[in-house]
Order: sequence, then structure tokens, then C-alpha cells
Amino acid sequence: MKGITADQLMEAHRADLAIEGEEDVHFENAWADPDSGIVYCLSEAPSAEAVQRIHERAGHRADEVHPVPLAV
Amino acid sequence: MKGITADQLMEAHRADLAIEGEEDVHFENAWADPDSGIVYCLSEAPSAEAVQRIHERAGHRADEVHPVPLAV
Repeated sequence: MKGITADQLMEAHRADLAIEGEEDVHFENAWADPDSGIVYCLSEAPSAEAVQRIHERAGHRADEVHPVPLAV
Repeated sequence: MKGITADQLMEAHRADLAIEGEEDVHFENAWADPDSGIVYCLSEAPSAEAVQRIHERAGHRADEVHPVPLAV
């Protein structure tokens, strides 16, 4: 979403948080670049599908959802 | 890097941490998916170029470096 603002990012994040529990997902962080429109979102979730369902219902379907089982 | 292990991710992260100060970069987190080989890395840095120089010197050039000035 090119030109995304801090408020829009927060609004999108809150929309996820409002319904995440219904899929046992927890959205931890989100980052965005207004110039490229790239938005990254980090969550704990039972599956990529559960993440996508929440994003769709919140009105912002993800282009890609990748599991990242390893973290440091 | 397909098949990346937790140890390899930590080793790569440590290699970045060892020299990050020389470019005023701080690598905060890294995440990876052994199946796809995708590795994400989050850092505070003066520029994308500084991040890439550290990654190159640490032996793992990034395919892409994106600024994410917005965060929640």
C-alpha cells in the first residue's frame, strides 16, 4: 500500500488484533515502507492459512505468508 | 538458504553483530524458514547500503534490503 501512514498501519494492526483470537493467532509487530508500499507483519499462529483468514477478514489480504520457525 | 539450521542462523547473526558497529548498524532480530530458505533480518541502520555492506562482509549478502520507517 504505497503512501501508507503510521495511523493506517496502526489501524490495520488493530483490526487484526480485534479478531485474532478467533484463530489463535497473535500479531506481534508490523513494519511498513510508505515509498514501496511493502508491509511486513510478524505473528504467532497455528498456520499460514489462519493468518491469511484474519488478514482477509480485517480487510487487508496478504500477498505472501511465510512460516519462520527459526528466530534469533 | 534452504535447510538452514537454528545454529547456522545464530552463527550468521553473530557474524553481523561482530562488525555491525563499524557501520552504526544494529541487527535486532532474524527469522528463517528452512523449507523455503527465506531469511528475514530486522535492523536499525543509517542506510540500506550500510546493512548490505555488513551482510557482505559477514559472508551472507542480502537479496533485498527494504527500509521500514513505520513500525507498530
